[in-house]
Amino acid sequence: MASNHSVTLDTINPKILECEYAVRGEIVTLAQKLQQELTENPDSHPFDEILYCNIGNPQSLGQQPITFFREVLALCDHPAILDKTETQGLFSADSIERAFQILDQIPGRATGAYSHSQGIKGLRDTIAAGIEARDGFPADPNDIFLTDGASPAVHMMMQLLIRSKNDGIFCPIPQYPLYSASIALHGGTLVPYYLDEATGWGLEISELMNQLQQAKSKGITVRALVVINPGNPTGQVLAENNQRQIVEFCKNEGLVLLADEVYQENIYVPDKKFHSFKKVARSMGYGERDISLVSFQSVSKGYYGECGKRGGYMEVTGFSPEIREQIYKVASVNLCSNISGQILASLVMNPPKVGDESYESYFAEKDAILSSLVKRAQQLEEALNSLEGVSCNRAEGAMYLFPRIRLPNKAIEAAQSVNTVPDAFYARRLLNATGIVVVPGSGFGQVPGTWHFRCTILPQEDRIPAIISRLSEYHKGFMNEFRD
Amino acid sequence: MASNHSVTLDTINPKILECEYAVRGEIVTLAQKLQQELTENPDSHPFDEILYCNIGNPQSLGQQPITFFREVLALCDHPAILDKTETQGLFSADSIERAFQILDQIPGRATGAYSHSQGIKGLRDTIAAGIEARDGFPADPNDIFLTDGASPAVHMMMQLLIRSKNDGIFCPIPQYPLYSASIALHGGTLVPYYLDEATGWGLEISELMNQLQQAKSKGITVRALVVINPGNPTGQVLAENNQRQIVEFCKNEGLVLLADEVYQENIYVPDKKFHSFKKVARSMGYGERDISLVSFQSVSKGYYGECGKRGGYMEVTGFSPEIREQIYKVASVNLCSNISGQILASLVMNPPKVGDESYESYFAEKDAILSSLVKRAQQLEEALNSLEGVSCNRAEGAMYLFPRIRLPNKAIEAAQSVNTVPDAFYARRLLNATGIVVVPGSGFGQVPGTWHFRCTILPQEDRIPAIISRLSEYHKGFMNEFRD
Repeated sequence: MASNHSVTLDTINPKILECEYAVRGEIVTLAQKLQQELTENPDSHPFDEILYCNIGNPQSLGQQPITFFREVLALCDHPAILDKTETQGLFSADSIERAFQILDQIPGRATGAYSHSQGIKGLRDTIAAGIEARDGFPADPNDIFLTDGASPAVHMMMQLLIRSKNDGIFCPIPQYPLYSASIALHGGTLVPYYLDEATGWGLEISELMNQLQQAKSKGITVRALVVINPGNPTGQVLAENNQRQIVEFCKNEGLVLLADEVYQENIYVPDKKFHSFKKVARSMGYGERDISLVSFQSVSKGYYGECGKRGGYMEVTGFSPEIREQIYKVASVNLCSNISGQILASLVMNPPKVGDESYESYFAEKDAILSSLVKRAQQLEEALNSLEGVSCNRAEGAMYLFPRIRLPNKAIEAAQSVNTVPDAFYARRLLNATGIVVVPGSGFGQVPGTWHFRCTILPQEDRIPAIISRLSEYHKGFMNEFRD
Repeated sequence: MASNHSVTLDTINPKILECEYAVRGEIVTLAQKLQQELTENPDSHPFDEILYCNIGNPQSLGQQPITFFREVLALCDHPAILDKTETQGLFSADSIERAFQILDQIPGRATGAYSHSQGIKGLRDTIAAGIEARDGFPADPNDIFLTDGASPAVHMMMQLLIRSKNDGIFCPIPQYPLYSASIALHGGTLVPYYLDEATGWGLEISELMNQLQQAKSKGITVRALVVINPGNPTGQVLAENNQRQIVEFCKNEGLVLLADEVYQENIYVPDKKFHSFKKVARSMGYGERDISLVSFQSVSKGYYGECGKRGGYMEVTGFSPEIREQIYKVASVNLCSNISGQILASLVMNPPKVGDESYESYFAEKDAILSSLVKRAQQLEEALNSLEGVSCNRAEGAMYLFPRIRLPNKAIEAAQSVNTVPDAFYARRLLNATGIVVVPGSGFGQVPGTWHFRCTILPQEDRIPAIISRLSEYHKGFMNEFRD
């Protein structure tokens, strides 16, 4: 029976067809299918659950939310209970106080109203103060645009900057596929710069210069440079000196610096520290007139991991008032981001302080999460490095390991014979054998001829040994099957 | 001092420059400035507050949220209190029960995790059941895409359908500027069809046929038809027979029907009823293979008015599996919509039922809001119709009045002499004189040479008399100043 559909793959926006998003791609669809099969028949597979290590989604793997944050959110959702006696038995005194403070910042205390298109002014004040405290340089609440997670902020900037295929955006390779997807959706060109795996995913300015020349020779105007620090999927934390070089490069070449800083609280090694690009630029003496800089932050990462709340912001500096007005207009078309996410963004930038009633429990929760992540990162890294043909840089930050796998030629041929990219072939078999979901390196980009996968460090600590043994066993079997 | 900015109005995406969004445009920027001045000096203007009648934002004007909804949201935000004794003193029994039910539908009870890209499956089940109960026709949870309010859903469909300037989207004129803005941002062409003010903003099929021919003769392929029912800014409710004609037209012409049904609960006249376009299509015997149909719903409107929560969904029917996959992919790039908004969307489609502990208070709250809106609509409509040169169709639904103002030639000339569109001239002077913010008709589109403004019916009932007298006094003064 013929259908009347006028919308076909031939008649939709071709940019949509070009867009790819591996983090929720084919492997995840397969995982959902296996999960369904397990629900229907627990014996249908050689494992009893699917372990989603494909995405930085801590609470889906059992991480508990920070109590103070949730107390404040609940009170702001239902302010009618704020004055009740029972509330004092259920909530900490400082969460009640904070909820009152936040409600006072919302016109009419209306948490159910659209806010200012950039977000509630009082919350932006709090966030700006938090940035200032972090960086030691001033931050302006009018530079803050609150968004539903970082993704819409990234889209907004891509939409602003990309006019055509001839506009290029510098992205690290490997990169987080939000960037490649967003550039494809907006019809621009991704200009790659390769991170050097041998030096712990180092970023070389010479590589940037080379790639810029190549892009120019192809008629591409590079508009902006995306840098992800701490790195996703690569987990490195940039040295401050390296950051200075990047700032200098962007300034000299007139590139907008798009700094993905959503993992700023996820640092796992004592020898590395997070420095925001704004702090680095300001400490070099560069101000509003010298460099256009956007910093993205999210409530989904850090120790809080509140992915489902879709809170985040971008701090937009170094643009002319006319351009700011255009960004404001685009933000206005979607009215505002969700208020719970806005509140949470203000909380993560201004958590309980020493002396507050919640401080001790807050600090204990935060510390337990972060120190456990350090352990998990180390255990997984070590295990991966012990496998034949696998080498894995350390996770200095973020939430991922990105091991390189030297696949035997036979495995590559076997993959090609079923029209599959070799690392996807590896990842799919891993899923089918163990229930562990990882994302093939090809979804992030990698030096041609090298193969990787991204695996989060997020399963709870007591699960790590089982994961390691399942992964190791699978890998050994795979190598035995395909060893050249 | 020259700046180093490489991003200028000449080098950004020109589609952004083309985009306009009057609901948060120039007049609102002026209003924010006046509000700031009033804060600094309460005597700086001849009024003591700004009344935002520019946007359907009920809670910003004092409408209280529905208690049951907020109870459930608070409990889902902080499930740790669900088992506590004090909680039973603070929350209704059915809100506690509902929170448990919802948590059971969320994998791992993790309200802080990213969900499935379309939204939590259990919540989609609830929504589908609600649609089924509303329409009497089956609804499939796999057709539901939960979104951060309706706006991102509209953008998603525009992004899918628009390839170039040669792709056209039918929009009513007057229209809600989200549509014109989204079409501009995605580089398509808005193909207008004019609603007939004389017949209560009637929609004539002959007008659609004419405009379709004109568009075709210009080389434009019309891909979809937007219909807003109840109407925004026009407030009419379509008759079922008229809806049938529209379905027939879209089916015959192979157009996707994009049905903005966010005001489905806002009907103020006994002789009109809301019928979803899906129900109408199905009752005509048209199924999946006959017509591609997308229905948009939002938690921001109705009697709930939870704008700040950014919840909503689209129900997508009549597309092939390959196209569905593309829509899913685009939804995945933003991971998921915020979970509180998802929960709220399930609540509005499944509110308390007779017999539930909250039912009586829920019903009383809902009824008070809706019956007050009826009164406010009538009072404002009557007042507007009593003004010289003003005629106003009744608000059968939605949240707006859209009066026509016959401006004297002198006023039009005065506007032109300051390079201002005449209805914007009227609206700006209204704001400066009274603090009342309305949106000029030119922001929505109107028959050339006619002038209107959109004013919400949302100020609280006790404020309406003062608004009417301020508005009437201003209008009289305006007419006296400019009468020909």
